[in-house]
Amino acid sequence: MRQSARGQVDPFIVMDVMAAAARAEAAGRDIIHMEVGQPGTPAPAGARKALASALEQPLGYTVALGLPELRQGIADLYRRWYGVDLDPARVVVTSGSSGAFILAFSALFDSGDRVAMGYPGYPSYRQILRAMSLEPVGIETRPEDRYQPRPEALPDAEGLILASPGNPSGTVLRPDEMRALTQAATAKGMAVISDEIYHGLSYGDRCHSALEITDEVFVVNSFSKYFSMTGWRVGWMIVPETHLRTVERLAQNLFICPPHASQVAALAALDCEEEAQANLAVYRENRRLMLEGLPKAGFTRIAPPEGAFYIYADVSEFTDNALEFATEILDHAGVAVTPGLDFDPDRGARTLRFSYARATADIAEGLRRLTEFMASR
Amino acid sequence: MRQSARGQVDPFIVMDVMAAAARAEAAGRDIIHMEVGQPGTPAPAGARKALASALEQPLGYTVALGLPELRQGIADLYRRWYGVDLDPARVVVTSGSSGAFILAFSALFDSGDRVAMGYPGYPSYRQILRAMSLEPVGIETRPEDRYQPRPEALPDAEGLILASPGNPSGTVLRPDEMRALTQAATAKGMAVISDEIYHGLSYGDRCHSALEITDEVFVVNSFSKYFSMTGWRVGWMIVPETHLRTVERLAQNLFICPPHASQVAALAALDCEEEAQANLAVYRENRRLMLEGLPKAGFTRIAPPEGAFYIYADVSEFTDNALEFATEILDHAGVAVTPGLDFDPDRGARTLRFSYARATADIAEGLRRLTEFMASR
Ligand SMILES: Cc1ncc(COP(=O)(O)O)c(C=O)c1O
Ligand SMILES: Cc1ncc(COP(=O)(O)O)c(C=O)c1O
Repeated sequence: MRQSARGQVDPFIVMDVMAAAARAEAAGRDIIHMEVGQPGTPAPAGARKALASALEQPLGYTVALGLPELRQGIADLYRRWYGVDLDPARVVVTSGSSGAFILAFSALFDSGDRVAMGYPGYPSYRQILRAMSLEPVGIETRPEDRYQPRPEALPDAEGLILASPGNPSGTVLRPDEMRALTQAATAKGMAVISDEIYHGLSYGDRCHSALEITDEVFVVNSFSKYFSMTGWRVGWMIVPETHLRTVERLAQNLFICPPHASQVAALAALDCEEEAQANLAVYRENRRLMLEGLPKAGFTRIAPPEGAFYIYADVSEFTDNALEFATEILDHAGVAVTPGLDFDPDRGARTLRFSYARATADIAEGLRRLTEFMASR
Repeated sequence: MRQSARGQVDPFIVMDVMAAAARAEAAGRDIIHMEVGQPGTPAPAGARKALASALEQPLGYTVALGLPELRQGIADLYRRWYGVDLDPARVVVTSGSSGAFILAFSALFDSGDRVAMGYPGYPSYRQILRAMSLEPVGIETRPEDRYQPRPEALPDAEGLILASPGNPSGTVLRPDEMRALTQAATAKGMAVISDEIYHGLSYGDRCHSALEITDEVFVVNSFSKYFSMTGWRVGWMIVPETHLRTVERLAQNLFICPPHASQVAALAALDCEEEAQANLAVYRENRRLMLEGLPKAGFTRIAPPEGAFYIYADVSEFTDNALEFATEILDHAGVAVTPGLDFDPDRGARTLRFSYARATADIAEGLRRLTEFMASR
């Protein structure tokens, strides 16, 4: 039976690490998980309670753009977080931010179009683009730029994806950097998509939304990270008024609607920022331990982790085969980490990503093991 | 800001009807809903109970292909329903059957490829194809063929979508018809996708899966209809072994995973066939009333509704503007029905679809109103 060329996307390398970690656990070993990019906590209690009491209703298809009260709640959040006055009509509830990317790319780009993004970056950008017959164009970023692209370095392309805080770097774009990048991109005729799914998870200044700078941007966000709702598959996108009808028709046909139960939970989650802040306090402490412990263990070349729950380390002094190195760390230290190749097809063979989204005790134990392993090497 | 050509998909015409019905209700009118294609019943009690007791767990990302026990449960259903021995490794849990189409089309077709389907048919097939830079090719079907395509009528194309029971026709392919169609398509090098999302909802013989005939087929199904779980966005797809890795990588990147809470509910729903059968008994009675009442009201040219919960009527003796006719029915009779243009861009201006998925009392009242309206016309 036929297979498409567009379907031949790259495998997720972290999946091999996760499978190896699962095998080790099945064999009775204790593994510390620093590879997975998700909180270990459940959805906020208020969210779960709201869903529990909605379960008697028939949770049928909602309208394609999402429950009106949820769209309003998200618009309110833009005032609270950024001081931005946002028309709820521009809020599109999506099936995770993943669903938002599919909608944005469909609304903006035609087969063969080029879409640029910084390397290292979230691997699925590249693969979703390929699956849609679009061409990902990597911009090699520099550690001294905190792994974010410079306006001068933008290639010729139809689109640009920005991510702040970035994954795997955890670095945050300053408002002036965001402005320079969106302006340079717009001047080149590029449509800008700003991935803001780690907003709320920052350790210095608050994160700035591209929406504070321009309305001519697709802003993508999600309940997955800050609200600790990865498996619920509910995110959102703010679209320019000019693109609303297009995105609505695409959403009707491609998804029908985001999961109704998840929308009910997400609506209530908006009122649970206290619980989200408590999770953030845990990440903050984990981050402190990591910034203290990783260099002591020998991982000294790390990007300043200003947000999210990742630390990206240059390990070129130890290896030029990060996958092998990650396997060694798993086998000998019992710590699962992500080799960088998922994030940077070129330089990722010499980098690792450490995630610190789990419980603090796990982080402390992981650091102890990493230190011991590196000392014995 | 740029817009793509692929994003310019057609609007859903039924949405206009639904909006008009909602306006009428807001103005205090009582409307009978024969336009919507979904059950009015909630998910099975067992499914809701299972989810309620899972809410304490962190419902994080699952593996991309879905919870292993759910994939096993779906494989078991193929033995129970069809006597087919199915390797659970070939079961892909998806974000509704909508998610399954995106995965199937990505895995099978490249930009510019042609995919054929019978007209009338489910409108989103065409629009999803367009959004993915693929070309939908309509096969004009005949009432005397129960609105299903004939093997001789297959055009040159890379793919073929079959739907049995069909939407809007409700007609079912016999095993010999299914065999002749899949064989003719395969001989022409077409990949076959069999949409079986109304299986379980049939009123004569049981429905036959394409999987009883060949393994060289993508079979799409869903918890939406038979299990009454539309808003939950959980469906599945059976893929040939040769395409598993491709589909898995696409699913990892495009969706990460189907909604976890919905998967928990769906797993329990598999044990709730008694409740599903009770819903079916309601549709059966509704169908009996419709088959008796519609012709009496004047709608005599209808496709034999062997499955699903739709009746497709040729109303060319009354109108060549079904949208106007539907508006008239809504305004004067207080019954919302779907004009055929969504399903057949050519002949749909002279057809209507009636849905009978709601409570029997509503169906009886709707028929009374339709009869009165047609008599007064
Ligand atoms: C940068 C970034 N964007 C988007 C996503 C997708 O998240 P979701 O689809 O759960 O909203 C992730 C997930 O890890 C991510 O790291
Ligand atoms: C024939 C057909 N296929 C697919 C779908 C999509 O269903 P879902 O995505 O809810 O599984 C529908 C919905 O009405 C349909 O009628």
